[in-house]
Amino acid sequence: MPRCTTSPPFMTPWPTILPESGRPSTCPPKSSFCRPSVWFGPGKDKPTPGRLPMPPCGSGCKAACWSGWPKRPAFQGTTSRAPRVPPAPGPLIRRRPSRGPARGREQGEVWGGGSPPQAPPFLGGEVLGGFEMTELLEALQETLGPSHVLTGAEAAPALIDPLGLFQGRALAVVRPADSGEVAAVVRLCRDARVPIVPQGGNTGLVGAATPDASGRAVVLSLGRLNRIRAIDPDNDTLTVEAGCVVAQVQAAAEAAGRLFPLSLGSEGSCTIGGTLATNAGGLQVLRYGTARDLALGLEVVTAEGEIWDGLRGLRKDNTGYRLRDLYIGSEGTLGVITAATLKLFPRPASRALAFVSLPSLEAAVAFLAQARLHVDGGPSAFEIISRPLLDLVSRHAPEERLPPLGGGVPWFALLEVSSTTPKEGARAVLEEVTAAALDAGLVVDAVVAQDLAQEQALWRLREHGLGAAMARQGRTLKHDVSLPLSRIPAFMSASAAALRAQFGAVRPLVFGHLGDGNLHYNVAHDPAQSIDRLVAQAEAIHQLIHDMVHAHQGSISAEHGIGQRKRDQLPRYKSALELSLMSRLKQALDPLSLMNPGKVLP
Amino acid sequence: MPRCTTSPPFMTPWPTILPESGRPSTCPPKSSFCRPSVWFGPGKDKPTPGRLPMPPCGSGCKAACWSGWPKRPAFQGTTSRAPRVPPAPGPLIRRRPSRGPARGREQGEVWGGGSPPQAPPFLGGEVLGGFEMTELLEALQETLGPSHVLTGAEAAPALIDPLGLFQGRALAVVRPADSGEVAAVVRLCRDARVPIVPQGGNTGLVGAATPDASGRAVVLSLGRLNRIRAIDPDNDTLTVEAGCVVAQVQAAAEAAGRLFPLSLGSEGSCTIGGTLATNAGGLQVLRYGTARDLALGLEVVTAEGEIWDGLRGLRKDNTGYRLRDLYIGSEGTLGVITAATLKLFPRPASRALAFVSLPSLEAAVAFLAQARLHVDGGPSAFEIISRPLLDLVSRHAPEERLPPLGGGVPWFALLEVSSTTPKEGARAVLEEVTAAALDAGLVVDAVVAQDLAQEQALWRLREHGLGAAMARQGRTLKHDVSLPLSRIPAFMSASAAALRAQFGAVRPLVFGHLGDGNLHYNVAHDPAQSIDRLVAQAEAIHQLIHDMVHAHQGSISAEHGIGQRKRDQLPRYKSALELSLMSRLKQALDPLSLMNPGKVLP
Repeated sequence: MPRCTTSPPFMTPWPTILPESGRPSTCPPKSSFCRPSVWFGPGKDKPTPGRLPMPPCGSGCKAACWSGWPKRPAFQGTTSRAPRVPPAPGPLIRRRPSRGPARGREQGEVWGGGSPPQAPPFLGGEVLGGFEMTELLEALQETLGPSHVLTGAEAAPALIDPLGLFQGRALAVVRPADSGEVAAVVRLCRDARVPIVPQGGNTGLVGAATPDASGRAVVLSLGRLNRIRAIDPDNDTLTVEAGCVVAQVQAAAEAAGRLFPLSLGSEGSCTIGGTLATNAGGLQVLRYGTARDLALGLEVVTAEGEIWDGLRGLRKDNTGYRLRDLYIGSEGTLGVITAATLKLFPRPASRALAFVSLPSLEAAVAFLAQARLHVDGGPSAFEIISRPLLDLVSRHAPEERLPPLGGGVPWFALLEVSSTTPKEGARAVLEEVTAAALDAGLVVDAVVAQDLAQEQALWRLREHGLGAAMARQGRTLKHDVSLPLSRIPAFMSASAAALRAQFGAVRPLVFGHLGDGNLHYNVAHDPAQSIDRLVAQAEAIHQLIHDMVHAHQGSISAEHGIGQRKRDQLPRYKSALELSLMSRLKQALDPLSLMNPGKVLP
Repeated sequence: MPRCTTSPPFMTPWPTILPESGRPSTCPPKSSFCRPSVWFGPGKDKPTPGRLPMPPCGSGCKAACWSGWPKRPAFQGTTSRAPRVPPAPGPLIRRRPSRGPARGREQGEVWGGGSPPQAPPFLGGEVLGGFEMTELLEALQETLGPSHVLTGAEAAPALIDPLGLFQGRALAVVRPADSGEVAAVVRLCRDARVPIVPQGGNTGLVGAATPDASGRAVVLSLGRLNRIRAIDPDNDTLTVEAGCVVAQVQAAAEAAGRLFPLSLGSEGSCTIGGTLATNAGGLQVLRYGTARDLALGLEVVTAEGEIWDGLRGLRKDNTGYRLRDLYIGSEGTLGVITAATLKLFPRPASRALAFVSLPSLEAAVAFLAQARLHVDGGPSAFEIISRPLLDLVSRHAPEERLPPLGGGVPWFALLEVSSTTPKEGARAVLEEVTAAALDAGLVVDAVVAQDLAQEQALWRLREHGLGAAMARQGRTLKHDVSLPLSRIPAFMSASAAALRAQFGAVRPLVFGHLGDGNLHYNVAHDPAQSIDRLVAQAEAIHQLIHDMVHAHQGSISAEHGIGQRKRDQLPRYKSALELSLMSRLKQALDPLSLMNPGKVLP
């Protein structure tokens, strides 16, 4: 039942949007909105942008710890979106790297908290392949300077992925300064038949940037290619090197009065090269697209160590095959992205954010469709959270301030609208869309954030609270999947039923970017059973979820990629023909198979 | 000088937007706009949608003649955009097909009017390759039914391109009914080592769908694959077969309450498969992207005759290499697109259109930037026309009703805004943006179309009047190029100066999709010299323009592709490395080189 005044004890009153019929008598008659002037405490409670309390981060997420507070460009208006808090990833099933044994980890082990695993002893300097390897190391040192060929403890952080799922060994970690040096490294490695593992910010979630355990590979870090090469506001483009951190790219765009919209939890440490190599998504895909959609041109060092200059700032160019989109999303298995020309956008003059409760997933899909129909250019975010997951936040993450929505609904959503109209522009549109949805019964109850602090609290809930609550309750099996929007309700019902039938009371805890059809589908253990049982069932549960996704025309990797983690699952879900076409392309562009071997392709 | 009342004798008064300072005393004091109630004649002059007078089309443009009046979906609001008139392409330099002699045409000949050239005698049934060819024809007839293996006069229209630039011969034109039959045809041809030329609506402008003169190829027409396979409004997707005409796809989207935004002159006859194979652009790229951006998934028959089912309706899918974008834009040289899953969009509730005069090209670029900043989701069109071209329309196309803007400015632009807000939504935004540009001096004068008839007249001017005027004045050399927006003013100055220096008083007549950086750069002959001289200079002028484009980081084919027409120019503008990478991909996916040989790759 919609309400405006009551709230559970842990909640402070929020302004609530009510349908006409349900509005209490105290609401002004000509407005659809009831806006109390207080919202979870007085103004002094407002977090200051950039000085939010640090979230607890004992979960070992290197990405979050490294990134600090990702820098968010300030907006032109007064209702700027809150700086986003990097999510604290919950526990995950670690799988043994498929090629070569992992050290000190058991296959299928679940890691749910505490310190991240330590890097294994580093093998740099050990002459794994005899004289040739020593020669290669010397040549690399001569080319890059000895201080940029890392071995020992200096190199260790690059040999383990940020979730501690994969750990490898390498001959060296090299840090070229520019595209020319990248090309030189590739040529040296090629001549020595040594595999190359490109690495950006090392924030990926599928082990694509971690070498295998053989110790034969060279890890090629792009970190020193961190120059903004050119900015062209009249063309709305920016040309940057691959090692630029995404937040740095955002800041460069902001300095030119433009928006670079790619925004994700690790934006303070992930690099633009890495996001392109994995075609990362994030929070604003609905309006602006994935990393692929934001790139106009690339510079790539090929597997032969040649530099392909495809840095075009053109919206239209029909002069041959689309090499750019072959390298994007190939996770370093076809070549090394060394620079990119990126699209810029106008900076929104206003933003507004609503949190709504929904009677069903079908209603969520219909509400999103309505929002797309009535928001020019589309909403900038539409994120859903399942009730069990929000309940978990109430129990395990009391520091999160939840909006006062209740009433037993199964789903919640965050809807963000951006507008070029300053001040109340976005808010007016958001309120109109939400009020119409209330009237139509698509939304049960709603609040609109009244100020920056409230926006920050909502984004903090989405980006930190959910992960923290899951991590503290125990352990979950994670899945990053996508589906046609129209199939999501059926998929959710079918997968929940199948889980129940096969695995008893294991609990789906789901959230995600509904606007992109992208669900982060987590499975928590049956409270009546031990976590060990979940661990034992992990592979079977993964397969059940992925089979269900496949049966509903979905994808087993929406935005994280394949890497090592899902590589062996591809043959189950891709046709032999598609895998064969991929293999032929790999053979065409990397005939010696030295570019990031063991990733993506089964 | 801005004005509101005077107009040249051939013009009827238009409502004119004036800056505050220039507003005449009769304008209402609180509005920036002066809106006389009449606009080039009384209401009875309004063309009825779908019943516009047929444009004169003696220029031999098969695309325009075939398409009739492209069907435009009606909009939800009352200010629907006018049905667009297919442009009548002007004369072009025809180049001899590079492989095999063309019949009856001289290299470099200019064709500027009259009937299109006739198809050459058809060779179907001639046993070019001996017994095997007869066997192949029999096998094709057995597979498809004799009525779908065309020879003789039935096949002739498929052997010549719509501009009459290229003409070829073929063993047969085959018309499979579905993807399975396409695959069967490809396998039969492969076994016989016979080349395949895929063809959609045969409306392409670079000869990509025309066979060479050897007569050995089979033309594979996709016309019978014309089913709408599925529509999913909740997912905003539509799955259609390759032979569906674009207008049919638009209509299917409209019937589902959605917009399929691809819109181009030949939409009444071009197929969706062909637009994907060439990555066509058109009039709404600025807001919605090119054909590539509108496709989520593909079904492709590979060069081996296997069917790759990549018909995914997913916004995010990071599970391997992007095969989809390799086939899109490859002009049938890697495989045959047989179906596609396309993105749908909300239908705009209102649209508004302004025609403005601009003091310079720099001001045009700045005005566009302002429009992008202040229109949510961006304008839906921004088209420019150079003064000499508009003057040509005055002289040679008196049936066009020109907006009453004058004053010696060098450039004009059409700016269209679409909005989800009904009624005056789009118009209010358009007027605000235009008034601000007037105040800032970016725009000298402006009119906003007051009704459907005025919108139709403006679009008719853009899509028909320009081409008709050029065709009637004589002959032009055409170039479809793109540049970074920021480089367009410098490119225009430099290319005009170079043309003057090398070729005297030849005249650039330029229009295009400025919003996409896409110029249609035409060169007309020096009035003091004969057209023959222009013909003789054609290759040198092409090279000058393309060299200039290249020097300004542009592309020699923005939206028409490479086909046969620009194939031999690629090595001048693409690096050897890029051409080598393209060749390797071709070799990987079409090792026998039977898919549309002689196109794209040099």
